[in-house]
Amino acid sequence: MLSSRHLLGLYGVPKKDIELILDTAKTFREIIERPIKKVPTLQGKTVVNLFFESSTRTRISFELAEKRLSADVLNFSASTSSLTKGETLKDTVRNIEAMKIDMVVIRHSAAGSPHYLTQLIAANVINAGDGTHEHPTQALLDMYTIKEKMGKIAGLNVCIVGDISHSRVAMSNIFGLLTMGANVAVCGPKTMIPRDLEKLGVAIFTKIDDAIKFADVLNILRIQLERGAASNFPSLREYHRLFGITKERLMKHNKDILIMHPGPINRGVELSSDVADGSNSVILEQVTNGVAVRMAVLYLIGTRTEEN
Amino acid sequence: MLSSRHLLGLYGVPKKDIELILDTAKTFREIIERPIKKVPTLQGKTVVNLFFESSTRTRISFELAEKRLSADVLNFSASTSSLTKGETLKDTVRNIEAMKIDMVVIRHSAAGSPHYLTQLIAANVINAGDGTHEHPTQALLDMYTIKEKMGKIAGLNVCIVGDISHSRVAMSNIFGLLTMGANVAVCGPKTMIPRDLEKLGVAIFTKIDDAIKFADVLNILRIQLERGAASNFPSLREYHRLFGITKERLMKHNKDILIMHPGPINRGVELSSDVADGSNSVILEQVTNGVAVRMAVLYLIGTRTEEN
Amino acid sequence: MLSSRHLLGLYGVPKKDIELILDTAKTFREIIERPIKKVPTLQGKTVVNLFFESSTRTRISFELAEKRLSADVLNFSASTSSLTKGETLKDTVRNIEAMKIDMVVIRHSAAGSPHYLTQLIAANVINAGDGTHEHPTQALLDMYTIKEKMGKIAGLNVCIVGDISHSRVAMSNIFGLLTMGANVAVCGPKTMIPRDLEKLGVAIFTKIDDAIKFADVLNILRIQLERGAASNFPSLREYHRLFGITKERLMKHNKDILIMHPGPINRGVELSSDVADGSNSVILEQVTNGVAVRMAVLYLIGTRTEEN
Repeated sequence: MLSSRHLLGLYGVPKKDIELILDTAKTFREIIERPIKKVPTLQGKTVVNLFFESSTRTRISFELAEKRLSADVLNFSASTSSLTKGETLKDTVRNIEAMKIDMVVIRHSAAGSPHYLTQLIAANVINAGDGTHEHPTQALLDMYTIKEKMGKIAGLNVCIVGDISHSRVAMSNIFGLLTMGANVAVCGPKTMIPRDLEKLGVAIFTKIDDAIKFADVLNILRIQLERGAASNFPSLREYHRLFGITKERLMKHNKDILIMHPGPINRGVELSSDVADGSNSVILEQVTNGVAVRMAVLYLIGTRTEEN
Repeated sequence: MLSSRHLLGLYGVPKKDIELILDTAKTFREIIERPIKKVPTLQGKTVVNLFFESSTRTRISFELAEKRLSADVLNFSASTSSLTKGETLKDTVRNIEAMKIDMVVIRHSAAGSPHYLTQLIAANVINAGDGTHEHPTQALLDMYTIKEKMGKIAGLNVCIVGDISHSRVAMSNIFGLLTMGANVAVCGPKTMIPRDLEKLGVAIFTKIDDAIKFADVLNILRIQLERGAASNFPSLREYHRLFGITKERLMKHNKDILIMHPGPINRGVELSSDVADGSNSVILEQVTNGVAVRMAVLYLIGTRTEEN
Repeated sequence: MLSSRHLLGLYGVPKKDIELILDTAKTFREIIERPIKKVPTLQGKTVVNLFFESSTRTRISFELAEKRLSADVLNFSASTSSLTKGETLKDTVRNIEAMKIDMVVIRHSAAGSPHYLTQLIAANVINAGDGTHEHPTQALLDMYTIKEKMGKIAGLNVCIVGDISHSRVAMSNIFGLLTMGANVAVCGPKTMIPRDLEKLGVAIFTKIDDAIKFADVLNILRIQLERGAASNFPSLREYHRLFGITKERLMKHNKDILIMHPGPINRGVELSSDVADGSNSVILEQVTNGVAVRMAVLYLIGTRTEEN
């Protein structure tokens, strides 16, 4: 059984919980390959997807996971909400909960909002991304993919490349990977690397060739152009020249490196198409594993509830 | 069995129908407390939520009620509709009906549109709010809550506070409560009280202290700021001073009064937070009961259909 | 079994496939008249509705068909998509597919996009309208309606009236009707009739009275005002005068002609209300049949998959 009845982040989540999620996800990974990709586990449960930031793939991935567990699904997005009538988040959420829901999957631009939610409502809360804080199911699906491809996580050299400071994906990966015994590094422009990261035991590279030399796995972050990320460096061309992962650059090191990316890709910026679509890329497998990992999290939290 | 195969309003609905709905809702109220909050009653039936006005809680409440009865649910909102292609409401609705649907839940800014709908289509029609006319399921959930908390409706003194003239919630409550034998009053600025209300047997207060003196139950309406309601009185501060329900004001009367509000609350305008969140407030229970009452209405209407 | 595991258009689709779809649709047509309009055929399958153009009736018709076959349904529209984050259609679609979906129903403004999709993903693809190219399920439901009403398709004189050049409905109908042995004609302003249509064996009328003289069936296209169609002729009044189908005009010919229209109707432009709502009109029956035909297509393609 999981230690917590929420999944707010991977910070402080014990190794046995992560292992339980990854093991459970393996079962669901098999189920979603079947002609009938559905189990009745959460029948009669209500899951609300509360998305205050726009999202395609994460929302769809959760929605599919929920439906394949036979839950009743409600989608609630900011634009259609009473928030436009001036209601507070607190009132909105308490009202939704009063309808007797079981789980809330929340994405919100404010770091800590999922934690705040747990203080307002009795339902289980799953963080689907809160500001620059955490995105735990993304890190879990990344770890699932690493384990599936490399046979283990402990002892592997994993380097996360990009704008670390503004990445909830990076933070969740760092916490999870350290717990699982990986050697974790980050690589990016100095201005994009949070101070104090070294204190967690994370190695820091500012040259991409050093990162490639180090890595068994490269997890390449998306430059979030839509959030004004481009203002942090001279130009996209410059970023690509210094940190872009290309086949040419990888060839120089003559190593077999697992290539990961949380998507959507800016082709030709942080990643060239020959690498994104190359034989070492597991980017689409990450997406598939994402549904299985989210089914595992929903299942473990949703069935745990009944024992309370 | 209900007298009508539609629920257009509470005006003229016989007492035995209201009692049947409230009794049936009690069963569903128990079901939604269970781990498995679902019954197969409406399996294979199609319910269309036709929302021409934006709404969060009412639409979600209906959608949950429909899904928990195992109906197939279609959400149709004005913004995604062919209406933008210039089609008439009549053609839109007839086309949707031609797809063989069983029930339509409609919210529309035009009073009478649910009634108009019954002349266009054979499906059962449930009014989820039509202009300033009626919002019958809100009144039914209010009455359910009163009965649950006070043990009865007949003989109770119920006062509705706010902009009565523009409130479909007020009108449905007045019709329903009078039928059920309550003593009904309204309280608000003179400009916000419809003429002729006294002829229905409704007492009228223009001073909030008189209303509090009278009431066993206060149903406090939302000042609908988003509809320009603020233009009907000097200022929000003035409204709050004259009609706002605060703990201080209630304490003066030293009475145990049930506090209701259809939501969303304008905290500090029609209701202060100490009352909204206080021990006499049943505002969140109204929301819970709303799902049960809507399940009852959908069930009673949906199964009645088959006997036609 | 259908010859193809996709439905991209009716061009080149063999007669036996069309017959199989129409025969299968007959079974579903009966099912959707039942109190329980649902079969478990596609339980555990995932169908994604990828709508890059706004649509009400086609999307709702597909969604109902999918739900009545018990499929899990995901709606994905352009406005909510990662496309706003600059992702390519290719990446978007590959990502959705990686979540292990079974079928995609696509509507897109670009002709050929459903075909392009089949090269990107392994899921079955159903075209719900691509630019001015094809809209095969509309033509199938038109043919189903003709067969049901007239007892046959072969040998009938069917004339399509309107802006043929810009109509995917017209093209799919022409291909399908010719395959089924109908005598096909079109009628419209010269500027709205594609060259080379005669080479397919289609008769061309530029006077509406000639078309009426010829026709057992008139399939009247919508003038797509929202796409600037009005710029192709002097005025709507002029179009109505020359090509509008009115009761008066039909009476002159004293013939029983089946009146069809894919909707939504511009009343008083291409069709007058007395004809649209008259006894020879089967416009609403087309809508009903549309759900049955789409269930047939989804069923035949969805169950075919398993044999691959």
